[in-house]
Amino acid sequence: MKRRGRYVVAFDSLPVIISAASSVGKAEGEGPLSQCFDCVNSNDGIGSSTWERAEASLVKQAVAASVKKAAVKMPDIDVAFAGDLLNQCTASTFGLRDTDIPLAGLFGACSTFALALFMCAAAVDTGAVRLALAEASSHFCSAEKQFRFPLEYGGQRTPTAQRTVTGAGAALVAPEGEGVYITHGMIGRITDYGVKDIANMGAAMAPAAARTIADFLKDTHSQPGDYDMILTGDLGSVGSDLLLEIMQEEYGVDINNVHADCGKMIFDSQVQDAHAGGSGCGCSASVVCSHIIPQMKENKLKRVLFAGTGALMSPLSALQGDSIPAVTHAVLLVAKGGGS
Amino acid sequence: MKRRGRYVVAFDSLPVIISAASSVGKAEGEGPLSQCFDCVNSNDGIGSSTWERAEASLVKQAVAASVKKAAVKMPDIDVAFAGDLLNQCTASTFGLRDTDIPLAGLFGACSTFALALFMCAAAVDTGAVRLALAEASSHFCSAEKQFRFPLEYGGQRTPTAQRTVTGAGAALVAPEGEGVYITHGMIGRITDYGVKDIANMGAAMAPAAARTIADFLKDTHSQPGDYDMILTGDLGSVGSDLLLEIMQEEYGVDINNVHADCGKMIFDSQVQDAHAGGSGCGCSASVVCSHIIPQMKENKLKRVLFAGTGALMSPLSALQGDSIPAVTHAVLLVAKGGGS
Repeated sequence: MKRRGRYVVAFDSLPVIISAASSVGKAEGEGPLSQCFDCVNSNDGIGSSTWERAEASLVKQAVAASVKKAAVKMPDIDVAFAGDLLNQCTASTFGLRDTDIPLAGLFGACSTFALALFMCAAAVDTGAVRLALAEASSHFCSAEKQFRFPLEYGGQRTPTAQRTVTGAGAALVAPEGEGVYITHGMIGRITDYGVKDIANMGAAMAPAAARTIADFLKDTHSQPGDYDMILTGDLGSVGSDLLLEIMQEEYGVDINNVHADCGKMIFDSQVQDAHAGGSGCGCSASVVCSHIIPQMKENKLKRVLFAGTGALMSPLSALQGDSIPAVTHAVLLVAKGGGS
Repeated sequence: MKRRGRYVVAFDSLPVIISAASSVGKAEGEGPLSQCFDCVNSNDGIGSSTWERAEASLVKQAVAASVKKAAVKMPDIDVAFAGDLLNQCTASTFGLRDTDIPLAGLFGACSTFALALFMCAAAVDTGAVRLALAEASSHFCSAEKQFRFPLEYGGQRTPTAQRTVTGAGAALVAPEGEGVYITHGMIGRITDYGVKDIANMGAAMAPAAARTIADFLKDTHSQPGDYDMILTGDLGSVGSDLLLEIMQEEYGVDINNVHADCGKMIFDSQVQDAHAGGSGCGCSASVVCSHIIPQMKENKLKRVLFAGTGALMSPLSALQGDSIPAVTHAVLLVAKGGGS
C-alpha cells in the first residue's frame, strides 16, 4: 500500500474481488435490475418474526451466496468488515454471528460498503490476510421504523425523499484469482454544508461525494474520461443533480458523461413510488455486487470509481437541530485489462 | 504485517503510540484514577445543551489533548479510526467533524478503542500512513437515556449492572518516535453464550474475552507469565470473576496473577455507586490512555495485552428477546525494552 498524493492509497499487490453476491426484497426484485440479484425474496419478512431479524437474514443469504460462488468455506475467511444502519449495527452482528469469522465492525451509514471494500483491499494488500469479506445491508421496514415513522402510520414522503433498499451485498477479496481488481482507494473527510432536511439526504451527501471525487482525481492525476463510470452510492436523482453542479462550479470538473448512481438504478421511480431513488447501505452493496461487478467481469465496464456516500446523522441529532454531516469513501475497481 | 498462527498478526514495523490523552466527567475525576486524566470536567454537561453534544465535546477535548502532547497539527493526521455507543455513532462524527481528518468509522461497542488501536497499527504498518488517530467515547447520561431509563426516572440498578463511563480517549500512532509499541493484534470472533440479562454485560462479554485471550496465547506460544498485565476492557467485577473461571475451566489457563480490568479500576464501587464497575467505550479508552500508557512510558509496566470487550446488542434486540453477542479485540502493548 503506497500513498498517492494527499488522500489516495494504491494497493500495489492488486487485491481481487473473487466473488460478490446480493440478496434483496420484493420491490428491488420488481425493479430494473431484477434479473441481476442472486437472491430475490418474495416477501420482505424473509421468514423472520421482526424486521431487524429479516435484515439479518438478508445478510446471511448474501454472505452464503458469495461464499458459494467463490467455492470457499466460511473458516477460510480471515476477517469480515461489515456494517449497517440499525442502532448498534445489529443486522451485521446477528447476520454474521454464526459464521465464526473475526468481525471488525464498521460505521459509515450508506458509505459502509465502499469502506468495507477499502478495508478488505488494505487487509489483503498487507499479505497477512488471504480472504476478507466486505458486507453491508439495509431494510426498508427496519429503517422506516427507526429513522422515520411506524409503517402503520402510512406517512407521505416528500419528492426529495429516497426509499431505503431492502438488500445486502457481500464480496470476497483475495490476493489473487479471477475477478475485479481494487487498485486504489481513499477514506473520506466529513463534509457538512449545513443541510438539515432529513427528507433530502441526497443534498446532504452530494458535497461530500464531490469532495472525495475531486480529491481522487487530483491525487491520481486523472480525468473523468479515464473512467468508464464514476459511481456514487445513493445520492438519488436530487443529490446526483447537485453533485454534477458542485463538481462543475466548485471544482471545475465535468463528470456528466460518466456519472451514475446506484440509488437511481435500483428502482423505477415513476412506477415504484421510490421518489428520488434508493438509499441505505444495501443499495450500493447490492448494485455493486450484482450489477456492476458482473459487467466488469465481462469487460463491459473496465474502470469504475465507486464512491460510497453516507449521511452520518441520527434521528436524535436531527431532532436536536444539528445539520447532517456526510462522508464519501472511494475505491477504484478495475477489470482485467483495464489498466492500473 | 505477518500472520502468527490463526488469528494474531504481528506488526513488524513496530508502530508507536506517540501520545495518548483522555477527558472525563465529574465522577471519574473523583475516582481512584483522578490524578491520571488529562482533562476532568467539573460538570457532565460540559457546556453543551444536550448529553449527546456533551459526549462530542469530550471527544474534542481528548483529541485536542493528544494532538497537543504529540506536538503535531490536525492536518498531519492521515486517518482517524473512531466510534462510540450512540445510535449512528454521532459522538465520533460530531466530535471529529471540524478536524477535516479522513474518518473510518468503527463499531465494536465497548471494544471500539482496542479495535481502533489495531486499525491504527495496521495502517501505519503498511507504510502508507504516517499518523493515525484512535478514538472512542461514552457518556453516562447519553447512554442511560439511550440504553436504559431517562435519568429523571431515577431507576435502581441491579448489583451486576455497571456504570457507563463519561469519558473519551485518543491516541496517536506513528511509524516511529518515543512511546509504547503495538507489536501484535487480533480481531475477535462473535461469541454468544446465550446471556440475555442486559443488566449483566460482564457475563455476556466474559466468554468472548476468554476466547480472544486463549487464542492470543495459543497463536503466540506465550503464557500469562509473559505479560505484566492482561487487561480487559470493562468486564467489571462480575465479568472479571467469570473470565478467570472460564479461562481456567474451558482453556486450562490461570490468568489470576496478571489480570486487571479497566472497569474495576476507574470507580471506587463501594463509595461511588458504580455497582459492578465502569463500562462504555470511554472506560477502556480513558484508562488505557491516561493510566496504562503513562506507566508503560515509565517502564513500570512492560508488556500489556489489552483485550477490549464489547457487547453487541441494541436495546431493540434485547426487547425482541435476543441474547447478547459479544466480541473482544486485542492489541499487545510493549514498552521500550519490553521485548518483541
